[in-house]
Formats: sequence, structure tokens, C-alpha cells
Amino acid sequence: MNKRQGKQTLLFAATPIITGVATIVGPKEGDGLLGEFFDRVMKDNLDNHDSWEKCESAMLEWAIRQAVAMDNSTMDEIDIVLAGDLLNQLMSTHFAMRSLARPFLGLYGACATMAEGLLLGSALIDGGFASKIATGVSSHYDTAERQYRFPTEQGVQRPPVAQWTVTGSGGAVLSAAGTGPRITAGTIGKIIDMGLKDPNAMGPAMAPAAADTLYQHLQDTGRTPAYYDMIYTGDLGKVGKALTIDLLADKGVDLSQNYEDCGCMIYREDQDTHSGASGCASSGTVFCGYLYKQLQKKSLRRILLMGTGSLHSPTSYQQKESIPAIAHAVVIES
Amino acid sequence: MNKRQGKQTLLFAATPIITGVATIVGPKEGDGLLGEFFDRVMKDNLDNHDSWEKCESAMLEWAIRQAVAMDNSTMDEIDIVLAGDLLNQLMSTHFAMRSLARPFLGLYGACATMAEGLLLGSALIDGGFASKIATGVSSHYDTAERQYRFPTEQGVQRPPVAQWTVTGSGGAVLSAAGTGPRITAGTIGKIIDMGLKDPNAMGPAMAPAAADTLYQHLQDTGRTPAYYDMIYTGDLGKVGKALTIDLLADKGVDLSQNYEDCGCMIYREDQDTHSGASGCASSGTVFCGYLYKQLQKKSLRRILLMGTGSLHSPTSYQQKESIPAIAHAVVIES
Repeated sequence: MNKRQGKQTLLFAATPIITGVATIVGPKEGDGLLGEFFDRVMKDNLDNHDSWEKCESAMLEWAIRQAVAMDNSTMDEIDIVLAGDLLNQLMSTHFAMRSLARPFLGLYGACATMAEGLLLGSALIDGGFASKIATGVSSHYDTAERQYRFPTEQGVQRPPVAQWTVTGSGGAVLSAAGTGPRITAGTIGKIIDMGLKDPNAMGPAMAPAAADTLYQHLQDTGRTPAYYDMIYTGDLGKVGKALTIDLLADKGVDLSQNYEDCGCMIYREDQDTHSGASGCASSGTVFCGYLYKQLQKKSLRRILLMGTGSLHSPTSYQQKESIPAIAHAVVIES
Repeated sequence: MNKRQGKQTLLFAATPIITGVATIVGPKEGDGLLGEFFDRVMKDNLDNHDSWEKCESAMLEWAIRQAVAMDNSTMDEIDIVLAGDLLNQLMSTHFAMRSLARPFLGLYGACATMAEGLLLGSALIDGGFASKIATGVSSHYDTAERQYRFPTEQGVQRPPVAQWTVTGSGGAVLSAAGTGPRITAGTIGKIIDMGLKDPNAMGPAMAPAAADTLYQHLQDTGRTPAYYDMIYTGDLGKVGKALTIDLLADKGVDLSQNYEDCGCMIYREDQDTHSGASGCASSGTVFCGYLYKQLQKKSLRRILLMGTGSLHSPTSYQQKESIPAIAHAVVIES
């Protein structure tokens, strides 16, 4: 069977099975719209650690260990771990990996990392290089704010277009055998940079990348949006979601019926997050928490999950560079 | 054919072929021991760009484009690009990828990224997911110093164990067909952290990871070091190299005959780099520049190339955390 379709899409004949998932979130996310679907809600953003960074690292370690436990396997049975986070040099991930002691490959796709991990993990399993792969991501409001923007204690006013970084982690186990939703294809995105420069406005910066990958996915596969029960982007927020719908309408693709953004699903309106959620854990926790359960009970049977990443850094912003963005898509069927 | 051997080793049956390589370096590297083997030597570390970061990004773009040109292919024929660098959020890589406009997956393995890209690229080609993959890395003395340590203008005295970040980039094209050295196996490393905390002493922090991956590679494959013409680590420097030899001698593995570190091959003794070279471009330029040519003319026929990565960040150092390290190995045969 051919393993490529069109220009950017990979087909997984052995259809890796997602045999375990786990999620952990902070109190704000636990108090949000999907609170009941997360496995563990921390009582605060430190969870007894002495820094936010250590808390983030511990969340990722917990999510991966818990996903492996749900799969009824031991850590020794995990052939490869693929993971990443938003912090400089993947600090949360690397510290989490110390105690896991498994073969590890580090990924950086900003908030698209969950989809990048699912996609690369599927290729490694489908290619016969692994029987079980664990993948996971983390993000944390306080570690991200102080790295990308301002110290949280400073209380800088946030513009309406700003999003709120999800404090949480999602972990998943991909297996060559077993039962669960299957990953049947993936589309690797290109970097798209439309010249936007405001690091508070990541949704608008990422929307063209999301539209590009989705359009290419439909071209590659000959499908229309109606092929999917639902299409989800990772963390475009309200503004980026509206832009994506408009950009694809201009190309004759109708997203009005079955498209949602994970960043618009996490917080209640009165939680004051402005444009919605962002961060690796936006798609990470929505997929591993809520969507996985819908696929299991077949209230969703076929979805397209697109991770969306804003690839700016504080240095690039200070040097007045624009924001490159990327989106990767995976097809998951139950 | 089984595609796994032992605990951490992948076997590539279709043996991806390295059909193109290119290197670009700064003046200090051009003036060093391997200067004649690099494709382009810049006259200074800015090369007419208005920041060091932009220069680094341009180097990576040049190296990938040149490797594709050496392969006599066009950028449109490259199915996937795998790349990374040392800067926060892979800034150099993401800006280089804007103009390449190819499907892209970002990797972070610190100075082990060249080996990570060769390994994952080989799996994707051997698995049938791509016909051509470009992979590359960059590092830059001035961008790395000011991000990881001190502003270069400050002229802080460097301890003897310190290494000098290579200014340069190496790019390679992996193909499913063609002629050139072949990648026949790869061993994915685990994160090893022995508790060292000095970010100037990366060689000693990485040596245990290098020793662990090499030992596991030999266990997995049933080989001894004598199976290889030469074994190369990426950037352990003099101190890390000596430690690696000692660590493996303790386990009964003799590295005294055919082992060298890329970080000890780049600069002349009188260039005052102390313990040697470091950075993604240490193994990147030594492999894509010097070693590739030796494999082509068969003065080397079978090598093990191990990328070595020190995974600390300035934040983790400030929080008094120890340094996690990793090493990935690839077997390359002509």
C-alpha cells in the first residue's frame, strides 16, 4: 500500500491504535467547561512543587505514566517516547524524561507538538520501528507568561485578542495492537508567516497555517469537511477560529457545520480568558481528555485534529521579526 | 525483516542513502583543522546580516538549499524537512524554513539534533513515508553565548573545561534511491543526568549519556568497537572524550583504538578554544563536511556517529537544576 497521498499526507496502513490516554490540569481548567473529563485537577498551579517549572515537568511525567498505566503496560514496554513543551530547551520535558529512562526524541512544534508527536509516533509504529510509543505535551500558564511575555506578578493588562495558556498535560500511548481509536493518516504542515508581529495575537498569526494545512489535507485526500464528524484546531481562540473559517470560505471550503477550536472549548465565558485557551496542553488535554472519550463511546467516529503552533520567541519579537506558524493534522477514527 | 534490534536500536532495511550534503562555517572554523573540507567560509560571524540570529538562520537555509542542489534535486522534491538549532523556540530553524516552504517537523535534541534528524529521517524513508528528506542543524558562537551564558561583549573569562560553540551549519539529503553512503541503523538514547550543574562543563555532563548509548548500541547489535573503522561523538571536547573512554573502559569496552570526538577535530590547539568545539554544528559540519568525503572516497567504510546533547537551559541553571544529557547514534556505511 502506498504510504503517501498527495503532497503532504502520510497514510498509516497498520493504523496505530491509541490504547491509553491521561490528562492533568490546573484549577482554572478543572473549573472550566471540560473539567469532568480530566483525570486529575491540581488544587493550585504549584501542586506542592517549589517552582512552576517543576510543577509543569511533574504534570508531564504524571500524564505519560498514567497513560501507560491505562494501557496496562509498564514503562519498560514503551519503545520510544516523543514529547515536547513550550519552555526554552524543552526544560519541562527533559526533566520529566529523567525518571522515565526510556529512549527519547525531543520535538518542538510549539502548540502543534501533540499532533507532531501523534503523527511521528504513528509513522514509527506503522513503519515497524516500535510496538509502543508514548507521546505527550505540557504547558503552564505561569511558566509560559514569564518566559514569553511579562512576570505574572506584574499584572500587565491583556488585550482582547490574547489567549490564556492552559496549565495541563496530556499523554497518550500508541500501540501496534490493541483496542481503541486509530490514527489513519496525518498531514505535515509548512511554515506560514503572513507578517504579523504581535505576540499577544497568536490566533491570527496561526490561522493562515491552519487554513493551509487543512486545505492541503482536503486536496491530498480528495475529501471535503463533511467526511469528518468534526474538525478541531488546537488553540486558535475565537479570533483565529473566525479567521480560519473566513480564509477557507474564500477557497470554497465550508467549515460552518462541523468545526471547533480546542482553545474555545476549555474555559467558560465568565473565566475572563479573552480569546480562549492556548498552549501545547490546549489540544493535548482536549484530545486526551474529552475527544478520546467521545471516540471511545462512538459519539464521534471520525475526526481531524490539527495542532497549531505559533513559533515566535521573545528574542525574535525583540528583533521585530514576524511570527512563523505551523499546523499538523492527524485523522483519528473509532 | 525485523526493524528493531535489542532495546534501543532501529535497523533500516531500505538503507536510506545520503545523496547530498553541504556545510557553511564562520572564519574561526574556516581557519581550523578542517577548513578545506567546508563548502563555504563566511568572512565574519554576521555575513552582512544585521543580527547574529539572522546570520545563523541564513546559514541553515544555505546549507539545506546547497545539500539539495548537490543532490541534483529541487526543493519541491523534498517531501519533509527535519531540522533544529540551539536557540529558544528553534528561532534560526523556523526563520530558515519560511522561505523553503516544505512540510516541516521541528526537532530539539540540543547538539544531538544532527543525529536525531538522520535517525528519524532514515525511519521515515525506510518506512515508505518519504522519498527524499532534508535535514540540517545550525549553531552560532555569538547567538549561543548570549543566550546560554553572557553577552559576548562582556568578555567573561572562560574556564579550561569550557568549549567553543561552532558557528556553522550542516545540511544533508536522505533519499530512497541514488548513490552515496548509507544509514543502516540507529540507536535512540535515553536521558542521563549524573547531577552535574556547571553549564560551562558540558562535556562531563554529556559523557555518561554518550557512554550509555554506545554501550547499549554494542549490546543491541552484538558488535564491538572494532566493527567500526571509527566511532565519533559530537561535541564532548577533550574532557568529555577522556571521561567517555574511562566510563566505557570500566565496562570492558576499549575505545582507545578508533574513537574521536568531532569537538576535538575542528580547531587548532593555538585557537584557544580550551576543551574544544561544541554546538549542533560540531557534529553537523564535521559529518557533512569532512566525514562524508572520507566515506565517499572509502578511506572510511563504516562509522558510528553519535550526536551528544546537553539539555540544560538558562532557567534550569538559575533554578540550580542539574544537566540532563542525551546521545543518539547512527551507523553510516559506504
